[in-house]
Amino acid sequence: MKRFLSTTTAKMSTTRKFNLGCPADLHVHLRDGKMMDLVTPTVREGGVSVAYVMPNLVPPVTTIERVMDYKERLEKLAPKTTFLMTFYLCKELTPELVEKAAELGVIHGIKCYPAGVTTNSSKGVDPNDFSAFYPIFEVMQKNSLVLNLHGEKPSTHNNHKQEHDEEPIHILNAEPKFLPALIKLHQDFPKLKIVLEHCTTKAAIDAVRQINSTRTSGEPVTVAATITAHHLFITIDDVCGNPINFCKPVAKLPIDRRALIDAATSGEDYYFFGSDSAPHILNNKSRNMGVCAGVYVQNNAIAYVAEVFDKYNKLDNLKKFVTDNGKKFYNLADDKLKCLDEVELVERKHEVPEFIGELGTDLIVQPFKPKEVLSWDVQWTNKFN
Amino acid sequence: MKRFLSTTTAKMSTTRKFNLGCPADLHVHLRDGKMMDLVTPTVREGGVSVAYVMPNLVPPVTTIERVMDYKERLEKLAPKTTFLMTFYLCKELTPELVEKAAELGVIHGIKCYPAGVTTNSSKGVDPNDFSAFYPIFEVMQKNSLVLNLHGEKPSTHNNHKQEHDEEPIHILNAEPKFLPALIKLHQDFPKLKIVLEHCTTKAAIDAVRQINSTRTSGEPVTVAATITAHHLFITIDDVCGNPINFCKPVAKLPIDRRALIDAATSGEDYYFFGSDSAPHILNNKSRNMGVCAGVYVQNNAIAYVAEVFDKYNKLDNLKKFVTDNGKKFYNLADDKLKCLDEVELVERKHEVPEFIGELGTDLIVQPFKPKEVLSWDVQWTNKFN
Repeated sequence: MKRFLSTTTAKMSTTRKFNLGCPADLHVHLRDGKMMDLVTPTVREGGVSVAYVMPNLVPPVTTIERVMDYKERLEKLAPKTTFLMTFYLCKELTPELVEKAAELGVIHGIKCYPAGVTTNSSKGVDPNDFSAFYPIFEVMQKNSLVLNLHGEKPSTHNNHKQEHDEEPIHILNAEPKFLPALIKLHQDFPKLKIVLEHCTTKAAIDAVRQINSTRTSGEPVTVAATITAHHLFITIDDVCGNPINFCKPVAKLPIDRRALIDAATSGEDYYFFGSDSAPHILNNKSRNMGVCAGVYVQNNAIAYVAEVFDKYNKLDNLKKFVTDNGKKFYNLADDKLKCLDEVELVERKHEVPEFIGELGTDLIVQPFKPKEVLSWDVQWTNKFN
Repeated sequence: MKRFLSTTTAKMSTTRKFNLGCPADLHVHLRDGKMMDLVTPTVREGGVSVAYVMPNLVPPVTTIERVMDYKERLEKLAPKTTFLMTFYLCKELTPELVEKAAELGVIHGIKCYPAGVTTNSSKGVDPNDFSAFYPIFEVMQKNSLVLNLHGEKPSTHNNHKQEHDEEPIHILNAEPKFLPALIKLHQDFPKLKIVLEHCTTKAAIDAVRQINSTRTSGEPVTVAATITAHHLFITIDDVCGNPINFCKPVAKLPIDRRALIDAATSGEDYYFFGSDSAPHILNNKSRNMGVCAGVYVQNNAIAYVAEVFDKYNKLDNLKKFVTDNGKKFYNLADDKLKCLDEVELVERKHEVPEFIGELGTDLIVQPFKPKEVLSWDVQWTNKFN
């Protein structure tokens, strides 16, 4: 019996490996202050070379000085990581400022939050009418800046007057109800690069596929979608009763999760990885009311995704999703990266830590799937060695 | 200005009052041990005279001895409250035992939990096949015992195999998917009294209305529905991020809430109040994972409901919902009540306590809508005084 077991082990030890190049996580929240210190180094730990950094600090990032300062501080914490910076779309931005930022190359895009839908979004915009920002979108289109959309309509579910009129907006239809605004933006700015961030519904996946279906061969992607790691795993059932899984947009139904998995694993060039990793201290997740929205996945970002690709026998498409598609959309040639170390995905069981940070202090973050065993791990290789 | 204000105050002080008779809460969880000691007296504080007590203790209540002992302990804690007792449907019950319990008059009904759907339901039944319990239902029908259904199919949302086959069961469709089982039970036992407990969906409300639409005038209700207080207020948006509002079945969409409000305020005799008040210690609600399902409303049960009826100008129908319909369905003549004190609903602002129990101990329960101000309050009157 022992011999048989050891034979099996020997067979199993032919570990599978995949070179993923320089993976990009095109939607990360690295916060500021001590939280920034804690999570920024975990970008690389999680197998990510390029991080597209969200601007929803307090106050939001809306000036050239602040975005440069923020980037500098991030690079000090993680010198081998390439940080792509963004502005926060709000009335403080002007077309002139955006033009100048584009010319200086300090930002790659601008993030648009509907007011009030998620963490630090109170200064966001009204997605029912983007027209006030059209002069900015003109400048962005001209300068190849990317518009990153948090694609949800603000909730009206507690507006009782609407109950008998049109369907109120609630957490489950907030994203589908946003899609007409995406389509209109694309019609009005056909060359503006737009990303519908952290898609959670089949409707959103279908809308982005539909827009891309009219692209001619060789034409670059203008409207893309990011998909997170955690939305490949969870549904609304996993959110209710588990604040650790609560984020905006909330995870939806099994049919939606399946659409996300199909899109991510398809290899199609307009779907790519953006983890939306959004750390909160444990105290803000272990509450009976007012839990903060956000799931932290950064320290195992690629490993989580690999888990799902493996389950659906699509590991051959993983590099497209986590590296190639996003880098192509953002025009990230190798000479724009701080470091050309590559990630190797290795079949190797390891446990997700229960916490990162220092136990006994306030600065404790619980990762997604704490203490669960993942089958895939990452290691960095230097191809010039 | 001051004079004007005091005139207004004088006008406002013509407080409205409504006599509600002896209200019945036909679905309560009073637990056991110290929690039972804490919450049982709050049944009366909340304006409830008759409480229909759920049997999901650990172990569940399945014997005549235990149900009598439980009732005795409850009566000691609240001598003026009438407790109607139930068995827990599971394979430990036999037709003979149920017949004996009915003859002794120690139970009014039997609660059926699908296995695994809520707190202490691991011993529940498979709602895909009730046939094993048909001999018990025969005895119940004969003896006018009520079958109280937790109307949800167990979840299959994480069974990936089903994703491309039939629609998986998740927290949002679990109740609608149960309705065919309700209809079949009613067809197979047309005289068995059945309550679809704590309805949360328009589909459930419509199904019960449909069943009753074929009743001839004067024919008693056989299939009824209870509606909670909290489901008249909240939707899924209020549950995600607020574990205090997490219960099973979870609150659904605005259109569902509106159907519940319309049903409750309609005065129709097959809809009545069952709060499903389900206390948990605060520690079990303030968690980042594995939050306990249940909302505690008992200490203001009637006041919460009154709030909604007032908002929709339906206070004239409140007594039907909280008193008359339920008492009629359960054949509760006055001589079956322990006390004939009546409840007066009074327009009087008061704040929901943040907690009940003893701060600094484990035994702390947070009520629904903590620290919010309610416009209606209850007071007891003795009509023989």
